[in-house]
Amino acid sequence: MKKLLFTPGPLSTSKTVKEAMLEDMGSRDHAFVNAVKEIRHELLNLAHVSQAAGYECVIIQGSGTFGVESVISSVIGKKDTLLVIANGAYGERIVKMAGIHQLNHYVLRFDEDQVVNPGSVREFLQVHPDITHIACIHSETTTGLFNPITEIGAVCKKYNKVFIVDAMSSFGGVHMNMKEMNIDFLVSSSNKCIEGVPGFAFALCKKPELEKAKGQARSLSLDLYEQWKGLETNGQFRFTPPTLSIMAFRQAITELEEEGGIEAREKRYQANKKILDEGMADMGFKQYLTPEIQGHIITSFLYPADPNFNFDRFYQKLNDRGFIIYPGKLSKADAFRIGNIGQIFPDDVRNLIVAIREVLEEEKVNVELA
Amino acid sequence: MKKLLFTPGPLSTSKTVKEAMLEDMGSRDHAFVNAVKEIRHELLNLAHVSQAAGYECVIIQGSGTFGVESVISSVIGKKDTLLVIANGAYGERIVKMAGIHQLNHYVLRFDEDQVVNPGSVREFLQVHPDITHIACIHSETTTGLFNPITEIGAVCKKYNKVFIVDAMSSFGGVHMNMKEMNIDFLVSSSNKCIEGVPGFAFALCKKPELEKAKGQARSLSLDLYEQWKGLETNGQFRFTPPTLSIMAFRQAITELEEEGGIEAREKRYQANKKILDEGMADMGFKQYLTPEIQGHIITSFLYPADPNFNFDRFYQKLNDRGFIIYPGKLSKADAFRIGNIGQIFPDDVRNLIVAIREVLEEEKVNVELA
Repeated sequence: MKKLLFTPGPLSTSKTVKEAMLEDMGSRDHAFVNAVKEIRHELLNLAHVSQAAGYECVIIQGSGTFGVESVISSVIGKKDTLLVIANGAYGERIVKMAGIHQLNHYVLRFDEDQVVNPGSVREFLQVHPDITHIACIHSETTTGLFNPITEIGAVCKKYNKVFIVDAMSSFGGVHMNMKEMNIDFLVSSSNKCIEGVPGFAFALCKKPELEKAKGQARSLSLDLYEQWKGLETNGQFRFTPPTLSIMAFRQAITELEEEGGIEAREKRYQANKKILDEGMADMGFKQYLTPEIQGHIITSFLYPADPNFNFDRFYQKLNDRGFIIYPGKLSKADAFRIGNIGQIFPDDVRNLIVAIREVLEEEKVNVELA
Repeated sequence: MKKLLFTPGPLSTSKTVKEAMLEDMGSRDHAFVNAVKEIRHELLNLAHVSQAAGYECVIIQGSGTFGVESVISSVIGKKDTLLVIANGAYGERIVKMAGIHQLNHYVLRFDEDQVVNPGSVREFLQVHPDITHIACIHSETTTGLFNPITEIGAVCKKYNKVFIVDAMSSFGGVHMNMKEMNIDFLVSSSNKCIEGVPGFAFALCKKPELEKAKGQARSLSLDLYEQWKGLETNGQFRFTPPTLSIMAFRQAITELEEEGGIEAREKRYQANKKILDEGMADMGFKQYLTPEIQGHIITSFLYPADPNFNFDRFYQKLNDRGFIIYPGKLSKADAFRIGNIGQIFPDDVRNLIVAIREVLEEEKVNVELA
């Protein structure tokens, strides 16, 4: 049975994206090297920047976290100081990296159900002028909130700080202009809103800042600067790339353009989200976040109070019907998550809602029970 | 046109291995978690060990180098000292890692055209009793030689050293019994002799040594111990796995078993190698290594002396005929490489030989010219 993934990724992808993996590909072959070149070019385009404008794209093997760690462990020098802004598990993951790599760093935390307050960031910078770099998550997949990256970017610009944005689950599904948003490093991965398959991350980098990373990396595999240099020298990777994931991604970018670019994709995701919100509210489900700070990537729904509700059975019965949802990751509340990115269309969301109704009836769960 | 890869990987893989990637797969889904479990079990089997016998399999996202770095940067503690044995680019890569991670280490070098001398290793250990770990490459893809791992393992056992073997391009294509060979950590990757597609590495680990790595890793993404713990806790990866590469690998292991296991595969690769050797010798090509130390994975052929020989044109014309060969990586001689692993069969090698003859005629290259 074909299953639809209502997760934050790996996602449902198109048949043609997966079929792009049916031909073996040499990692030093011209066809492959060309695909890599096109991808690096197109990703900058999608962020409304270019090599000519002084931006570079570096592809890093592994998961999205490998990409974030490549940036964090390469661009913060011994004399630099990083401010990590955290309001969820992914922010905390960067804090962990900063600890492991023994970077000079501060952490500015906000509650999981609150977005980052740019005013507080400004005040923190005034008190800590030693800060050189700021890292923040755009779409906190823990909850589904969107942090106000534009406003934080403006603060970074005013105080002349290097701005690192983990846009893992949002890039490609939300309009983002790196230059206008004052983002110096933007990280995302192959299996998110571009709708490719997993296998690699990518970092879009402001070139002068990327160049400062030379000789600073704390590992061989995750050396952002050397990875870039390798790609620039002969178009090849230093170490074996996930050739077929890259060919799938090349196709995924073509299909993103055919859909009408990020603008059209954002509209589809927003339409999915609206149907999901309405359908779930109709059944009585409550969301963890207030609507104003909620993004259109993934939503956290609180467990119903009814003791008949058992998440494992709920998950399994939806799975049996072809719908894969996602467990929660909140520190303070029991919730599950439903994503609406990937090859998911309004009718798929409607079908999911029908399936959820069926499962609730079968399980005799009264969602309205207080 | 279907192209055959005569490279050290990514390799030609079967149609059915690639087709295993045509279904989207959630990274926390039961079907996927089961596949991961089976793979981890089967890989230990292929090395003639098991969990019951005290061995563990850890899968690491990224290329083979990510797997090697995960081991090197996780298992060598602050008070440990590593001896890196190097006779090629892959040994030197481990030296580089040891430098970046500031490990206490020595390097024992042999010429690129010589295998490691176990007697010299023994003497080195006698002079340097502070050494705790030894790292060595099995099949040095730089040249194609096989280092005498069994003999080096015996030295490790006698002197009670932890033995780390990079068996990247050999595991699955050469009979290896980890226990008998006294190997504590064996690293290989998805796109080598198991004949999967690229996307991840794996480390087979002696459990008591793996447990010592707790809290020692120098990065988050490449933390071998935590990666293992994650997989053991709930069968899931800490960070997004290359789901479809893993499904392809599951199929590749099944097909390895159908072929008759490593024994049958080793025979096929040896048969490929014999046809390659004879065909190339017939045309007058000279090999870089003496036959005694040459493995059956990849072979380095010296450039013909005839000035008509131009590698780029030679490569391109073979490519146009559907045969992808590999450039050289020797520090002291001009050579190209031809691999005979992957879904390559004796008739494919015969066809390659015919194509090489054609290209040499077209290019008017006299291979015999001194």
